Amino acid sequence: MNGVKAIFEPQRVLLIGSSKIRERVGMASPELFKSVIYNMRKFFREKTCVLDADGKYGYNMLSKLPETPELGVIMLPPKQSVEHAEKCAKMGVKALVMITGGFKDEQRQQLLKIKEEYDVRILGPNTIMGVINTANGLNTTFERNVMPRKGSIAVISQSGGVGACLLDWACFYNVGISKFAFVGDKIDVDDVDLLRYYGNDRKTKVICLYMEGVKEGRKFIEEARKIVKKKPILALKGGITQQSAKRAKSHTASIAGSDEIFDAAFKKAGIIRVEDIEELMNTAIAFSKQPPMRGDNVAIVSNVGGPAILAADAVAKNNLKLANLSEKTKKKIEKLYPGVDATNPIDMIADARAERYSKVLELVLADKNVDGVLVINMLKSCFFEPKDAKVIKNVAAKYPNKPVVDVPAGGEDFALVYNVLGKTSVPLYNLPEKAVRALKFLRIYGEILEKH
Amino acid sequence: MNGVKAIFEPQRVLLIGSSKIRERVGMASPELFKSVIYNMRKFFREKTCVLDADGKYGYNMLSKLPETPELGVIMLPPKQSVEHAEKCAKMGVKALVMITGGFKDEQRQQLLKIKEEYDVRILGPNTIMGVINTANGLNTTFERNVMPRKGSIAVISQSGGVGACLLDWACFYNVGISKFAFVGDKIDVDDVDLLRYYGNDRKTKVICLYMEGVKEGRKFIEEARKIVKKKPILALKGGITQQSAKRAKSHTASIAGSDEIFDAAFKKAGIIRVEDIEELMNTAIAFSKQPPMRGDNVAIVSNVGGPAILAADAVAKNNLKLANLSEKTKKKIEKLYPGVDATNPIDMIADARAERYSKVLELVLADKNVDGVLVINMLKSCFFEPKDAKVIKNVAAKYPNKPVVDVPAGGEDFALVYNVLGKTSVPLYNLPEKAVRALKFLRIYGEILEKH
Repeated sequence: MNGVKAIFEPQRVLLIGSSKIRERVGMASPELFKSVIYNMRKFFREKTCVLDADGKYGYNMLSKLPETPELGVIMLPPKQSVEHAEKCAKMGVKALVMITGGFKDEQRQQLLKIKEEYDVRILGPNTIMGVINTANGLNTTFERNVMPRKGSIAVISQSGGVGACLLDWACFYNVGISKFAFVGDKIDVDDVDLLRYYGNDRKTKVICLYMEGVKEGRKFIEEARKIVKKKPILALKGGITQQSAKRAKSHTASIAGSDEIFDAAFKKAGIIRVEDIEELMNTAIAFSKQPPMRGDNVAIVSNVGGPAILAADAVAKNNLKLANLSEKTKKKIEKLYPGVDATNPIDMIADARAERYSKVLELVLADKNVDGVLVINMLKSCFFEPKDAKVIKNVAAKYPNKPVVDVPAGGEDFALVYNVLGKTSVPLYNLPEKAVRALKFLRIYGEILEKH
Repeated sequence: MNGVKAIFEPQRVLLIGSSKIRERVGMASPELFKSVIYNMRKFFREKTCVLDADGKYGYNMLSKLPETPELGVIMLPPKQSVEHAEKCAKMGVKALVMITGGFKDEQRQQLLKIKEEYDVRILGPNTIMGVINTANGLNTTFERNVMPRKGSIAVISQSGGVGACLLDWACFYNVGISKFAFVGDKIDVDDVDLLRYYGNDRKTKVICLYMEGVKEGRKFIEEARKIVKKKPILALKGGITQQSAKRAKSHTASIAGSDEIFDAAFKKAGIIRVEDIEELMNTAIAFSKQPPMRGDNVAIVSNVGGPAILAADAVAKNNLKLANLSEKTKKKIEKLYPGVDATNPIDMIADARAERYSKVLELVLADKNVDGVLVINMLKSCFFEPKDAKVIKNVAAKYPNKPVVDVPAGGEDFALVYNVLGKTSVPLYNLPEKAVRALKFLRIYGEILEKH
C-alpha cells in the first residue's frame, strides 16, 4: 500500500493526542481529542488504536498488536507532534495525518527528515480536520458526529475554514461525498498527490478543489489534464485580488499568482471554475448524477409561466440556447394537451400532474434539437403533488445521454420534492437560475471532453 | 376609504366561491374555495362573510348585515365572476379581488364597465393568489395555512408562479412580510396604484417587484422616483431576451420592451435591479434591517481565513473596496490580541469568542475609514458558540449609520446562529458572497439617496 492510499484506506489507525495539553490556538485540546476518538469509534469500520501521550497507555501496548497501524493521526503541539511522528515512523506506519498547526520552519524540516528516513508520507501539518473517507468511515475531524453521507463527490480544501464550510454544507444538505481532504501546510502530500489518488478512486465521480495557490503549477496542470478525461475537476479559487491574495499568502503560505494566470491554467488543464461554495456543491451534484451536455440547446418544461421565463433568461445569460423544438414535437404536445403552447419554454399550465409531465418530458427528450432539459415543478399555486415528481426520474433515466435537472422552486416546495427525488439521479435546485448554471457547467465539461 | 386601501385594509370581506363548480384550469374549485375560507377564518382578524354561489346562502342574508363589506373576493369562472362582481358593486363594496383566470376580452370590458358605473377598484382578474396583509391577517391565497410572518417587506408580483415562489420562500425562510399582491391581468389596479399604496404604508420599509412588463412607463417611473426617497424599491425583471419576452407577452399580456430600455428606466427611477428570487429576498432583508451604506469601504471581521478571503474577493468583484483601517485601529486590535494580524480582512483566529468579536467589531465600526462591516463567524473548526453571536447585534446597534451583516457560513452553522440572530436587526447570509451582494445593494441605495 502506498503512502497516499494509506491516508484514506488504512486497515488500522493509530490516533495520538493528549488528555492534558490545552493550547490556546493550534487545535490541541483534550476535548477535540475526545471528539476525534468519538468519530473514529463511531464511523471507522476498521481498527483504531488510541494513544494518550499524557495518559497511562503507551507504545508498549502497541508493540503487542498483531499488525502495525498503516496510518498515524497526530494532534499534539508541534514539538510533541514531531516526537510522536518519529515513533510512528519507526514503528512502520505508511502515512501520517498531522492535525495541529503552529509549526515552525525547523519543526517542518524535522518532519521532512522523518519522511525521507522512514519513507512515510505526511499530510499537513495544520490540516485541522484531516481526512474523511465515507467508504470505510475514516473520519479524523474533531467536529463530533459530523459525517457526510456516502456519495461520489471528492473534496480537497487548502483552507480549514472553507473546508469546514463545505463539510457543513454537505452534511446539512445531504450531499453525497466520497472523500474529503484538508491539505494544510503541504510539506509533503500536496494537491497533485491527492488529485492523482482521487483520479484513480472508483468511488469518486467528480473532484472539487478549494485552492488559494499552487506550488508546482506545471505538474498540477499535467495531472489535471489526465484526470479530466475520466472525471471533471471543479475549482473555487480564493485570493483573486492583490489584497486578498496577500492575505491568502499569510493564510496558507501559497504563492497565489495573478488571477489571470490561474484562469488560463485552469482552462489549459480542463478544470471548471465556479464562483462560490454553493455553486461548487451544486455543480458537483449535477456531475455526480447526470451526463455532460453535448450541445447548447436547453428545453424548459414547466407548470408555471414566470419561473419558466426566468429560466429562459438565465439560459441566455449563461451562453446557452433555448432549444427550437421540432414542429413534430410541438404538434404532438399541443394535440395531447389542447391549450398548452408547446413553444420553448413550455408552460404546461398549473393543473399539470405526473401524466402530463411524463409525456411532455419524453417527447422533448426524444427531440434531436434538445441537448438537455430543465424541469420546473411548483406545488404552490399549482396542482402538482410531490409524488408526481417520480416520473421525472423515470423518464430522464431513459435518456442517459441528455442531462435533466429539476427545479421545485422555492422553500417548502423544494423540501417536499427533495423528499421524493433527493437521493435519485435527478439533481434538484431551488431556483431556475441555479439549475441553468448546473446545465452550463455540464455543457462546459461536454466541450472539454470534445477538445481533450 | 379609497379602493386600493380597501383591497388591503377592509373592515369586512365578502368571499364568493362555489361548492360545486370545478374548472380544469382557471382555479375555481370547491377545494380551493375551502382553502381560502380556511385561511381567512384562521388569519383575518376582521369579519369575513362567505357566499357559496351554488349553495344555500345568498345575497338575502347579506342584506341583513349591519355594514356593507368593503372588499369582495371572487373565485368563480369568468361569467359568474362578472355577475357577482356587479352584485358586489351594487351592494357598495369599494374594491374587488378577482382570483380566477380565463377571462375573455368581452368579460374584461364588462368588469371595467362595473368599475366605472359603481366606482369600485378591481385587482385582477387572474390574480391567482390575490393579496396578503400580515398586519390584519387578510389572506386570500388558496394555499392552506400559508402565511408569512409579520415584517416590513412588501411584494408586488406580475406572475402567479414567481409570486407563489416568493411567498413559499418567505414562509420557509421566515422572512418578515408586510403586504403581498399578485397583480394578475391589471385591467384596473396596476403597479403604479400598488407602489403608491406601499409607498405610504407605514408597515413597509422596502418594496419588492417581480415584473415582466409595464403599461404606463412614465407614470411608473415618476411614482417610483418619489417613493425611493423614502424607501428602496427592488426589482426582478423577467423576459430579458427576445424569446423569453415573447413568452412573457403571452404569459401576462405585457409589452415587455427591450431589456436595455428597462435597465435605463430602473436607473432613472432609482429602482435597484437584482438577479434572482433569492437575491431579491436577501436584499430586501438587508434593507428591512440595516441602513444604506454611505461609502464603498467594507471591513471584514472573521474567525477563519479562507471564507474571509472569499469575502474580500467578492468585495472587489462587486466594485466595493476593502477598507484601509487606520493605524490606530490596527494597533489597538493587535495590542489586545497578540497573534492577530489586523490588516483587513481581519482573521481573529479560530479561538475567537464573544469578547474578541465584541471588541474588534467595536473598534472597526468606530474607524472613520469603514462604511460597513461583514462579520464571519463559523462554528465548525472554530471555538465560536451560537450564543456568542449576540454581541454582533449589540455592537452593531451602537452604530446605526453603518450597516453590519453577518455570515455564519454553511448549513448547520447558519441554522444554529439563525436561532440566535434570525429575528434581530442583523441580516444573516449563509455565504460571504451573498452578504457582500447585500452590502453592495445597501451602497447603491446610499448613492441613490445622495443623487435624488
